[in-house]
Amino acid sequence: MKHEQTEHIIQQLKSFIEQRNYKAIVSLLHDLHPADIAEMLEHFSTREAVLIIRLLPDEQAADVIAELDDDFREEIIKRMSSEEISDIVEELETDEAADLIADLPEEQKQEVITSIEDAEHAKDIVDLLRYDEDTAGGLMGKELVKVNENWNVLRAVAEMRRQAENVQRVHTIYVVDDQNKLKGRLSLKRLLTTSTRTPIKDVYNPDIHTVKVTDPADEVARLMQKYNLFVVPVVDELGHLVGQITLDDVVDFIQEEAEKDFQMAVGLADEVVPSDRILNMMRARLPWLIVALLGGFLSVTVLSEFSAALNKYASLFFFTPLIAATAGNVGVQSSAIVVQSLAKGMIQGNIFKRLMKEILLSLLNGLVLAAILLVVGKLFLDHLLPGFDMRMALTVALALISVIIMASIVGTVVPLLLHKFGIDPAVATGPFITTSNDIFGLFIFFTIAKMILKF
Amino acid sequence: MKHEQTEHIIQQLKSFIEQRNYKAIVSLLHDLHPADIAEMLEHFSTREAVLIIRLLPDEQAADVIAELDDDFREEIIKRMSSEEISDIVEELETDEAADLIADLPEEQKQEVITSIEDAEHAKDIVDLLRYDEDTAGGLMGKELVKVNENWNVLRAVAEMRRQAENVQRVHTIYVVDDQNKLKGRLSLKRLLTTSTRTPIKDVYNPDIHTVKVTDPADEVARLMQKYNLFVVPVVDELGHLVGQITLDDVVDFIQEEAEKDFQMAVGLADEVVPSDRILNMMRARLPWLIVALLGGFLSVTVLSEFSAALNKYASLFFFTPLIAATAGNVGVQSSAIVVQSLAKGMIQGNIFKRLMKEILLSLLNGLVLAAILLVVGKLFLDHLLPGFDMRMALTVALALISVIIMASIVGTVVPLLLHKFGIDPAVATGPFITTSNDIFGLFIFFTIAKMILKF
Repeated sequence: MKHEQTEHIIQQLKSFIEQRNYKAIVSLLHDLHPADIAEMLEHFSTREAVLIIRLLPDEQAADVIAELDDDFREEIIKRMSSEEISDIVEELETDEAADLIADLPEEQKQEVITSIEDAEHAKDIVDLLRYDEDTAGGLMGKELVKVNENWNVLRAVAEMRRQAENVQRVHTIYVVDDQNKLKGRLSLKRLLTTSTRTPIKDVYNPDIHTVKVTDPADEVARLMQKYNLFVVPVVDELGHLVGQITLDDVVDFIQEEAEKDFQMAVGLADEVVPSDRILNMMRARLPWLIVALLGGFLSVTVLSEFSAALNKYASLFFFTPLIAATAGNVGVQSSAIVVQSLAKGMIQGNIFKRLMKEILLSLLNGLVLAAILLVVGKLFLDHLLPGFDMRMALTVALALISVIIMASIVGTVVPLLLHKFGIDPAVATGPFITTSNDIFGLFIFFTIAKMILKF
Repeated sequence: MKHEQTEHIIQQLKSFIEQRNYKAIVSLLHDLHPADIAEMLEHFSTREAVLIIRLLPDEQAADVIAELDDDFREEIIKRMSSEEISDIVEELETDEAADLIADLPEEQKQEVITSIEDAEHAKDIVDLLRYDEDTAGGLMGKELVKVNENWNVLRAVAEMRRQAENVQRVHTIYVVDDQNKLKGRLSLKRLLTTSTRTPIKDVYNPDIHTVKVTDPADEVARLMQKYNLFVVPVVDELGHLVGQITLDDVVDFIQEEAEKDFQMAVGLADEVVPSDRILNMMRARLPWLIVALLGGFLSVTVLSEFSAALNKYASLFFFTPLIAATAGNVGVQSSAIVVQSLAKGMIQGNIFKRLMKEILLSLLNGLVLAAILLVVGKLFLDHLLPGFDMRMALTVALALISVIIMASIVGTVVPLLLHKFGIDPAVATGPFITTSNDIFGLFIFFTIAKMILKF
């Protein structure tokens, strides 16, 4: 849907709400895609959005709610009664229903579940609520199409038709035994080309990727991406088929993970969009700024320790932002490379070898930067800075190389350590590593200067 | 496949290569998934990898090559003759074949294309080569299943069977008219429940999302994500069906885009993994470090301009890393929020309003940070710093607030400007914005200090 169209419908909706012309709202939204309606609702207050959702038929309302942004959905659900929520849950796919119910207060959770009329649906949802959202069980839905290996093609097709009624999209037809143990899958291609008498046993494909219900979500995402799977069946510890995960769920997961890493790297504590309220914006931005400020005080303290240099080598203090920035940049580069390869499950080999390589690389980078520093120093800074001579230039160059090596070691080791202790290593790509490296860098800089220049 | 299994097979392969036991290699790899083989090949030299690929049957070799990392694939293809490449291209899906051929030198491109035996396949590939890789045409494949609206279900099923032979996975059955204009799609569910005499015209679903062959790839990705599409048909300007894009292609695209933004934010000029060669690592890391170093010289110059402060207010210089870091952090936060909402197509409303909000937010954040600064200053810094009194503390606090506001304005405006001029705004989240804000921040800090303290 085009941007102008959306704008136009939003304006119409606003005036219909003002005129209390509810019939017009229903017919205006009648043929729109739930994802488009959800997008439009973000331009209304929660109160207005609830009003619009209440006007929609249950099925459409459910589809719209499923498409809403998590935070906004939570606010809208808060304004609805348990019965209203039950009506919506009734129409949702099991995985979406479970996601929605999971966010409710404990008491309301019970109310909503007991009001669901379809007992099977309620049972599936309760089952899904048991799983951690970061596992295969948390990603999967219960809707799927399966046939028994002991049926023939004719019966299988009849059963598939029946089951397909309850399933939004048929991706794969699973084959199970009498105990519901997953045996394989039935290819539609094969089914289109096989006689109706053939037993399923003889035509199914036993070659199938599966995930366990307890597998971590990021491993599921990696598996589906690696093998280009559009759907993967989920089995329990005993091999029983309990659900399936589709690629669209995993896409959202992959994007959220990537965004989390990005947010961490740029120092945001939370996902924010420009339209968020000021208070939410502050909540996302202030925490890391405070951490960095406290780090800044440490750097003030470090510098004050070397105030003796002010007498003869004051221009050293002009280099502190340069040294701190380089330390910060190098540290973030190193940690980002480690974080990305951890995320891809690509860290192998021993840490010592990796560190040696990192140190060699830093030495090379440091030499290049030090050379630039000496040339620029000779050409420009000589005249500019009081008392800046070759001896000082060499001091700064040597310190720069040392700081780069130190920062790359910190940047490599810290995320590996965080990972080892079960903390998200991406923390190490943000202001945290920059700030620590600032402080270490300044300390090393002045320590080296003190040794060489003797102040 | 488990990590230990992979390790074990790699060791076996290495010893078979040493023993020149090629039969054993073929049978060892016979039942493995191409994605697993591709992953293992990354542990071999290009020469060895080519040797292994040459041993595999054409179809398996093609599948493995399709799964390889872009850079590694390019190196391997360089060592193959045009005939060998043609044999592989023959087995690849059209979109993969086009990606592979696109990277070849112009002359070899011609050789490979003319050696493809299947004329239809060659024509499809040549067609795909016309499109920019960042458009729908660049993402799409030509393999699909389509039926004519004038056929009945019986004929349609027969044709689908025939076409399905050449298609790896059937996602959707498209319905076209006699001119190959896309009319809609046929749901498998519907097909399973309709009598064989029914004309397709009466059962197809005309409600279908499409993209134009020239649509930008990121718009396609956004569309497929928003509407949860597993596949989307691609039409030309006249509405003719020319190909389809599947979600797995888009997943890779989404992840690459997210990684590019992350790399930019952490100051990497290129994708690198820890196993890359030192030279590649330097190429990715050095450019931004040099930019930041040059920026560092500017900050040296700015500070030297204010060297008069050294006499009475030397401790101001201890605050330069704190001020620079805060300016950098705030700037990156602001620009990251703009970049992310640009990437999601979410920038709306006027820039002036957004700036006002950003300034208000920065003022609030600045007040909190300034308050912390004053408290910490009173409690600790008083004793530590020579000549640090309330007047200096207030000066630093005021400067901090001003710097935060300035940095957030720069962080908001720069990516919007870059975007306007067609430059990737993500450039503004990296060392570029940090460095500029460092310099501006220091300038503002000392200018304010000079005005208040009069040095």
